[in-house]
Amino acid sequence: MKSIWVMNGPNLNLLGIREPGVYGSTSLQSIEEALVEEGERNSVSVTFFQSNHEGALIDRIHEAMGQADGILLNPGAFTHYSYAIRDAISSVSIPTVEVHLSNVHAREAFRHTSVIAPVCAGQICGFGAGSYKLGFHALLDILNGGISTR
Amino acid sequence: MKSIWVMNGPNLNLLGIREPGVYGSTSLQSIEEALVEEGERNSVSVTFFQSNHEGALIDRIHEAMGQADGILLNPGAFTHYSYAIRDAISSVSIPTVEVHLSNVHAREAFRHTSVIAPVCAGQICGFGAGSYKLGFHALLDILNGGISTR
Amino acid sequence: MKSIWVMNGPNLNLLGIREPGVYGSTSLQSIEEALVEEGERNSVSVTFFQSNHEGALIDRIHEAMGQADGILLNPGAFTHYSYAIRDAISSVSIPTVEVHLSNVHAREAFRHTSVIAPVCAGQICGFGAGSYKLGFHALLDILNGGISTR
Amino acid sequence: MKSIWVMNGPNLNLLGIREPGVYGSTSLQSIEEALVEEGERNSVSVTFFQSNHEGALIDRIHEAMGQADGILLNPGAFTHYSYAIRDAISSVSIPTVEVHLSNVHAREAFRHTSVIAPVCAGQICGFGAGSYKLGFHALLDILNGGISTR
Amino acid sequence: MKSIWVMNGPNLNLLGIREPGVYGSTSLQSIEEALVEEGERNSVSVTFFQSNHEGALIDRIHEAMGQADGILLNPGAFTHYSYAIRDAISSVSIPTVEVHLSNVHAREAFRHTSVIAPVCAGQICGFGAGSYKLGFHALLDILNGGISTR
Amino acid sequence: MKSIWVMNGPNLNLLGIREPGVYGSTSLQSIEEALVEEGERNSVSVTFFQSNHEGALIDRIHEAMGQADGILLNPGAFTHYSYAIRDAISSVSIPTVEVHLSNVHAREAFRHTSVIAPVCAGQICGFGAGSYKLGFHALLDILNGGISTR
Amino acid sequence: MKSIWVMNGPNLNLLGIREPGVYGSTSLQSIEEALVEEGERNSVSVTFFQSNHEGALIDRIHEAMGQADGILLNPGAFTHYSYAIRDAISSVSIPTVEVHLSNVHAREAFRHTSVIAPVCAGQICGFGAGSYKLGFHALLDILNGGISTR
Amino acid sequence: MKSIWVMNGPNLNLLGIREPGVYGSTSLQSIEEALVEEGERNSVSVTFFQSNHEGALIDRIHEAMGQADGILLNPGAFTHYSYAIRDAISSVSIPTVEVHLSNVHAREAFRHTSVIAPVCAGQICGFGAGSYKLGFHALLDILNGGISTR
Amino acid sequence: MKSIWVMNGPNLNLLGIREPGVYGSTSLQSIEEALVEEGERNSVSVTFFQSNHEGALIDRIHEAMGQADGILLNPGAFTHYSYAIRDAISSVSIPTVEVHLSNVHAREAFRHTSVIAPVCAGQICGFGAGSYKLGFHALLDILNGGISTR
Amino acid sequence: MKSIWVMNGPNLNLLGIREPGVYGSTSLQSIEEALVEEGERNSVSVTFFQSNHEGALIDRIHEAMGQADGILLNPGAFTHYSYAIRDAISSVSIPTVEVHLSNVHAREAFRHTSVIAPVCAGQICGFGAGSYKLGFHALLDILNGGISTR
Amino acid sequence: MKSIWVMNGPNLNLLGIREPGVYGSTSLQSIEEALVEEGERNSVSVTFFQSNHEGALIDRIHEAMGQADGILLNPGAFTHYSYAIRDAISSVSIPTVEVHLSNVHAREAFRHTSVIAPVCAGQICGFGAGSYKLGFHALLDILNGGISTR
Amino acid sequence: MKSIWVMNGPNLNLLGIREPGVYGSTSLQSIEEALVEEGERNSVSVTFFQSNHEGALIDRIHEAMGQADGILLNPGAFTHYSYAIRDAISSVSIPTVEVHLSNVHAREAFRHTSVIAPVCAGQICGFGAGSYKLGFHALLDILNGGISTR
Repeated sequence: MKSIWVMNGPNLNLLGIREPGVYGSTSLQSIEEALVEEGERNSVSVTFFQSNHEGALIDRIHEAMGQADGILLNPGAFTHYSYAIRDAISSVSIPTVEVHLSNVHAREAFRHTSVIAPVCAGQICGFGAGSYKLGFHALLDILNGGISTR
Repeated sequence: MKSIWVMNGPNLNLLGIREPGVYGSTSLQSIEEALVEEGERNSVSVTFFQSNHEGALIDRIHEAMGQADGILLNPGAFTHYSYAIRDAISSVSIPTVEVHLSNVHAREAFRHTSVIAPVCAGQICGFGAGSYKLGFHALLDILNGGISTR
Repeated sequence: MKSIWVMNGPNLNLLGIREPGVYGSTSLQSIEEALVEEGERNSVSVTFFQSNHEGALIDRIHEAMGQADGILLNPGAFTHYSYAIRDAISSVSIPTVEVHLSNVHAREAFRHTSVIAPVCAGQICGFGAGSYKLGFHALLDILNGGISTR
Repeated sequence: MKSIWVMNGPNLNLLGIREPGVYGSTSLQSIEEALVEEGERNSVSVTFFQSNHEGALIDRIHEAMGQADGILLNPGAFTHYSYAIRDAISSVSIPTVEVHLSNVHAREAFRHTSVIAPVCAGQICGFGAGSYKLGFHALLDILNGGISTR
Repeated sequence: MKSIWVMNGPNLNLLGIREPGVYGSTSLQSIEEALVEEGERNSVSVTFFQSNHEGALIDRIHEAMGQADGILLNPGAFTHYSYAIRDAISSVSIPTVEVHLSNVHAREAFRHTSVIAPVCAGQICGFGAGSYKLGFHALLDILNGGISTR
Repeated sequence: MKSIWVMNGPNLNLLGIREPGVYGSTSLQSIEEALVEEGERNSVSVTFFQSNHEGALIDRIHEAMGQADGILLNPGAFTHYSYAIRDAISSVSIPTVEVHLSNVHAREAFRHTSVIAPVCAGQICGFGAGSYKLGFHALLDILNGGISTR
Repeated sequence: MKSIWVMNGPNLNLLGIREPGVYGSTSLQSIEEALVEEGERNSVSVTFFQSNHEGALIDRIHEAMGQADGILLNPGAFTHYSYAIRDAISSVSIPTVEVHLSNVHAREAFRHTSVIAPVCAGQICGFGAGSYKLGFHALLDILNGGISTR
Repeated sequence: MKSIWVMNGPNLNLLGIREPGVYGSTSLQSIEEALVEEGERNSVSVTFFQSNHEGALIDRIHEAMGQADGILLNPGAFTHYSYAIRDAISSVSIPTVEVHLSNVHAREAFRHTSVIAPVCAGQICGFGAGSYKLGFHALLDILNGGISTR
Repeated sequence: MKSIWVMNGPNLNLLGIREPGVYGSTSLQSIEEALVEEGERNSVSVTFFQSNHEGALIDRIHEAMGQADGILLNPGAFTHYSYAIRDAISSVSIPTVEVHLSNVHAREAFRHTSVIAPVCAGQICGFGAGSYKLGFHALLDILNGGISTR
Repeated sequence: MKSIWVMNGPNLNLLGIREPGVYGSTSLQSIEEALVEEGERNSVSVTFFQSNHEGALIDRIHEAMGQADGILLNPGAFTHYSYAIRDAISSVSIPTVEVHLSNVHAREAFRHTSVIAPVCAGQICGFGAGSYKLGFHALLDILNGGISTR
Repeated sequence: MKSIWVMNGPNLNLLGIREPGVYGSTSLQSIEEALVEEGERNSVSVTFFQSNHEGALIDRIHEAMGQADGILLNPGAFTHYSYAIRDAISSVSIPTVEVHLSNVHAREAFRHTSVIAPVCAGQICGFGAGSYKLGFHALLDILNGGISTR
Repeated sequence: MKSIWVMNGPNLNLLGIREPGVYGSTSLQSIEEALVEEGERNSVSVTFFQSNHEGALIDRIHEAMGQADGILLNPGAFTHYSYAIRDAISSVSIPTVEVHLSNVHAREAFRHTSVIAPVCAGQICGFGAGSYKLGFHALLDILNGGISTR
């Protein structure tokens, strides 16, 4: 049975509470519940992690080696400057999909750049909680060989 | 019955032929066939269009008014400079999802910027033909009210 | 009898329909009717053209040679990147006035730059349909020798 | 009876004397006389002011509150750096039209940027003394409700 | 009784020890003691926190929800790149005042930019330990309604 | 008895009238009255000056030599380009505090840069009329030796 | 018998008419006649195409697959922004030589950059009609194996 | 008898008092006395003007028309942003030499750029009061035809 | 006996595992063993620390005060953005040598800039595990007074 | 009999030895022999020079005055920064063609800019040894009046 | 008796021959003769050197140590990029005055920057041969203590 | 016996004399003597070269082919602009280590960039004469296979 690790960066624990005008009113927990169901439907184990600590996310990415088949990552604001997370992703060589709740291209200029996306398989943004579900299926297709990750 | 219009920009007619190392060996026709099936499974009509002409794409976006419920758009290289297509998308107020076969963030610097994404609902890149299927489902969720498009 | 050719670029066919908050609710047709009247009052023939195709606009500018005495041009989004239209204007040596409905300087940064204005006689922006009427009179004065175009 | 205040910035007192190759040979006085006539024809009072002092122009813009219905402003070189005049225009909330004698887009790069235009109703450039007449009519249309200034 | 949480970022634990030529010889403890006194004089509880960990500061900002009425924040060097702290401040919607001991505008270019200030009520810099006292009074005025924070 | 000179740059005479959404509804006069009271409470004379003229502000800064012990300066829009005022401040060697009503970091990009702050003791922004009161106390502490100004 | 397709971009149909001070007085037709002769002398078929439409040029480049052995391309102003033409050239994998009549490096800054040259075999500029003849011989040498195109 | 007008911009009235470490301890008066002597030795009348007001300097430059044969100008900090003074110099067509006391190239980056120098005959900087004497002789040579000013 | 603290930043725990094509196949443990030997040969104690947490590295640098005579630091990706680590190094005033396994100048542009190197004694990069040995000897020479650190 | 001087800049003496993957395996000597033959066929004398010294190339360009009718110049890496060679070419007023073996536009960003090309007649790049032959014929046409060099 | 060494950089040997429209028709020899006379009048020995070789100029600057009291330097195009000459000037600690024949600020953008001026006493440009004479007198005043060079 | 060639660029002949505050008081000769000893201890021949001429350094690098096993290079100020030396290093394919006496990252911005380092094995800076000794040992390890140079 394949295993997908879902990781969320800073401030995503506040989802549903934080700026609902920008991020919607769905909580992180309900996103996770939906992904568990999606996992069960597809016979994939889904594991969750959220931290506001860049280092904890890097530690977690390292732990994924040998345990996770794919990583679904919403790096939050670390997207825009954490070269350390970028290097962690390159180091572990696990297919990773970057997701964002909001359409980052429609917001402040600093949110248009991802320093992490270049080492991911792909990026999905703008579909709220839906971004996670789409990212889950993207990973699934990669794991099933339906999408090559170069 | 909802209607989704799929539009492809320049050089995508060569898919499968053109630089398979970058874009994979799937042809545009087989992507379309897969989307038709996906449409049937979801009771959504799917209509296709490809042009190497910026103006033809704009004309087509205009025609979509009153006919299409959603647009799935791979603008090809127009992504990076066609402010005219951007304005067409804003003008027609139809939910639009931008998709790319390759992970544009992992390629030349000029491909990191989309002048069109800011007026789309969201963007999906890096999953080859899978980007279209994911984009189709993203649009479906938007049309079903599962994703709000601001 | 002098002849003025009015040319409109991409998405201007949607005028009145498209983003009325930005562009007002006047249609392109009513602008044209007003200009025809203005033309009649001043014994100038006024001819119209709109295209979403950059190439069609260039073809039209070329056709103007020997036929039009002045060009009133709203290049739409091509304003910001069509060096090809710029070269067309320089090539035909017909006095050209660039007009915009909205005040481009009060909008997104990319709209502050016109690559076409440097080869026009002048530029008028921000007065909605009025920009066309003012541009018409500017051209008229140029044709009557009241304004030199260097 | 409506009142339009015409204000001219630095060096415009030398009009006709100063660099006639760039600015033409019409003097500021003859421009003013033409505008007075135009005002009489349209039953609008027209008042003039010219100063080489940024502060004097700001003082004058403040005085316009409650007295002028519209401002016709040629800020001269202040166009390119006087954020103080920009703030004065925003402060008084009187419809303002920025005019330039020369086509600023066809000259040195520093003249392509106006820090004042974003808070004006619109901008007209390149038609010599004609720019003032066109700006006068643009203001007139705004005052008559023919043009909305947002 | 109102509650103000004072948070200090990296290296501020070394205050008084660290580069006294730049930051003065007052220790963080003596700043805190002064603020406690100021709090007592104004019947406001004052709580302190310092961490060299970006994530710990974000966790702390989250904890402030429902507990703190205002945040006095010296983000140290995180000022210049922590978009994650910026998002934490926006998320919790608690009035926040950014303070700096030194005049950041008189130092290296990278210190002239704050990525956090845009989501704060205001910023105070250059007055050594005095910046905290001033920031405390600014917050107090905001909490008392004397200053609106938009 | 110490003397503090308060100086206000362009458009601040319109305070309370000008864009109350941005600058609040307090008039400059009521700010001055509050500062006079604050001065009396602290046995400090407070003198006021406002001008829309850059040169008048420079003249006034020069006059402060030998008369003022501290300067409280809101340079208005001159903040962003008046190197001449910057040089005036450096020339007179009187401790100066720069204040702004609004949070300049939350507004247009051009307002994020102060060319004057590098030669001041410090900067306070975002607290409306409160910025002046805080700046007054910052200056007082500097004059009392409580804050060193390097 | 080898086949070389010569393609010309926007405004080149006006050659000889358009700005002779910059582009010389030779018409496109006489350039084509000279190339036909050159082709006959070298037993190479030479085919011509000119369009002001970016899309038509892309279509034509696609048609070249399997028919042309080499492409001689003067993209006109598209040189500076048509990433779509760039992608077309990469897609078809036919050796391409970019030519320009004028020395683009001696003209406006925007003409110094070619977004197409990086995917061509080489570039020749500055020799008027001679650029085409030289480009023809460069292609000939490539087709004869005398020049490797990486 | 030839006439040279010496004009000094903001803060130069404080010369000798202001930052002697940067500008030396010579007062503006002693510089003027030395230039008067130099003028007498060379049978040239020398007239002085200093103002902290940009507008006053422009007015003065205009007055020079028909009265001064040359202008010796130290624009102070206006050097770096006063396009209005630049235009005044171009307008009056009087040979002008720009001088600076300090070596502007060895100071802050913003002092390396002069917006006025491009319209002067030349520039001299770094020699303290000596810059004026050298500038005087440069002008003298220009007036005597020994140096052409293009 | 002198003491050198060796500190490693994010992802260096994966050395030998992570991207061996870039970083070589030596593990961090074997680098540490070699440095211990080198320490014994030179009668210097060598202590190790690795963390993926920026804050933990800063805490560790603070602990070094009074305990370490020199710091050998490979900040990993923090090199490029951690102004907080930079400030930690300046704060503790312990001679520090920055080392990198790979030649950062031969990799992606973002790796060419170190925000930490300006406050170190020097930098060594490109020699794999050898960079540490060389850095150890550089520190040793500094501690022995053979190299002055300004 | 016309005379063409061929000049080669730094490292071109290593041609055939140096990075054959980039520059091909032809030696400079064989290029020269081919050009001599080409010269004989066209009754033009061809003279060669290669130096790794910028100054020697400038001296050589000066010597060409009165002796050479045209210069064929491969400036090697000097292309990108030698304004001194640029000035030498402008000084001697001899038609010059810049050639490069590799397609500089397909290589590192710094190679995309030529500071010398703006003062040459034209530029040819990307055809290996063929660039010289093409450049020779371009010069020949210029000398025969077939190409005007402005 | 004081000694001044005059050094000229690349292409200045062609003075009077080279682009007389830009540099005038005076030869370097006649400039030198005028400076010798000026030297005799002031009892200063004047020695000349010109080279097109950057290295030769550096060697010459080194030789000046212990022999020259001042250097008058026209670095020609090296002005804009020779950090090596800059370092040579700093190394020898001899007062140096940079001179230019033309007004570099009125020419191409690359000529506006001098990498050498920051380590000179001052800079003089725009007065043709007169720049040398003025520079000579500037140096003389420095040597006589009339101008301090900090 | 292996052979290492040590090459020094401009102004390094003045070492010990030149700016001792920046570069220390050790002469180049004493550095060379120390390296000779180091060479003898390690049975490596060490050969020295210094030149202020870019071309002479390139010639020397070429001579190294077939004679030197490694190059220890301090390019002095050429570090920042000599693409010609960069190309020389790539051409000869001899392992090269770039060294600097001072910590270039702690000095002027222009010294932070090395155009040569990307083609070297690595870079060492900041350790005065020690940088050479460390660079020598780095090269030794490369030659002994202890460090791979990719």
